[in-house]
Amino acid sequence: MNRTALDQMECSIARALDVVGTAHAVLILRNAFNGMRTFDAFQAHLGMSSSVLAARLKLLTTAGILEKRPSPTDRRSFEYRLTAKGRDLYPVLVALLHWGETWDASPDGPRLTLIETATGRPVQKMAVRSEDGRALDPREVTAVPGPGAGHKTHSLAGWRRRG
Amino acid sequence: MNRTALDQMECSIARALDVVGTAHAVLILRNAFNGMRTFDAFQAHLGMSSSVLAARLKLLTTAGILEKRPSPTDRRSFEYRLTAKGRDLYPVLVALLHWGETWDASPDGPRLTLIETATGRPVQKMAVRSEDGRALDPREVTAVPGPGAGHKTHSLAGWRRRG
Repeated sequence: MNRTALDQMECSIARALDVVGTAHAVLILRNAFNGMRTFDAFQAHLGMSSSVLAARLKLLTTAGILEKRPSPTDRRSFEYRLTAKGRDLYPVLVALLHWGETWDASPDGPRLTLIETATGRPVQKMAVRSEDGRALDPREVTAVPGPGAGHKTHSLAGWRRRG
Repeated sequence: MNRTALDQMECSIARALDVVGTAHAVLILRNAFNGMRTFDAFQAHLGMSSSVLAARLKLLTTAGILEKRPSPTDRRSFEYRLTAKGRDLYPVLVALLHWGETWDASPDGPRLTLIETATGRPVQKMAVRSEDGRALDPREVTAVPGPGAGHKTHSLAGWRRRG
């Protein structure tokens, strides 16, 4: 599926996948959330080719998820920083992390635990939660199309009732 | 990046991406969460080629995310159902949905709102939350390697302190 096809979809998930729907993009973001900023550091840690890494960084920058700016310590080089839009992808990455830790655990124990720095306590397990904070099973949730929904979204949202 | 390379990574995010790191896989799951079950329905709604759809369904089935079983209404045909492991990916999809609705909103208004069926109230916005339920910014969270972490995870988790 090419990027244009996804971008033209009238679904917020599909549109999000247009920019973060490749493993490469998500791994770059994972590293950015851990404070990595430079092309050389990304390349050394991820082992991608220069051309693939450059293309992914450009895509993420164009999408406003990363911001490219001169390095504060070396004006001839650049660094890539998460924007507010990029930081807002954190729940996606943490949900992937928790799922991997749950369903593909290492026999040696947790690979990574996220803690609130101020309290030292683990963050909650990612869940879709009710207004008052209860974790909800997908079967307890209904998708309601809004005014921005096109006919494919309407079709999909009504599937469970018809099926 | 091929699947083997991701699968061999010692990171739960990378390992999760090994099976759900393509836009196709996520769109199939999106439709499955909406109650879609048959090959023909997936194909008609997603517009993928038969061969691509078959390959993605096989990958998701082999990974234990979907279960293929005879249709209860027609024993000659099959349906694909989310397993418990598959249902546990719901937070990933809802996080993508909320991000898309926030940062790539339709000018006409929300495309899709998720409500708790029992109460009719919208679900909480997806967030990484503290033990007591506060939404945390990524900069308020520390990644702590556990006993299952390899050297690349240790390297990445320590990046922010060194950077």
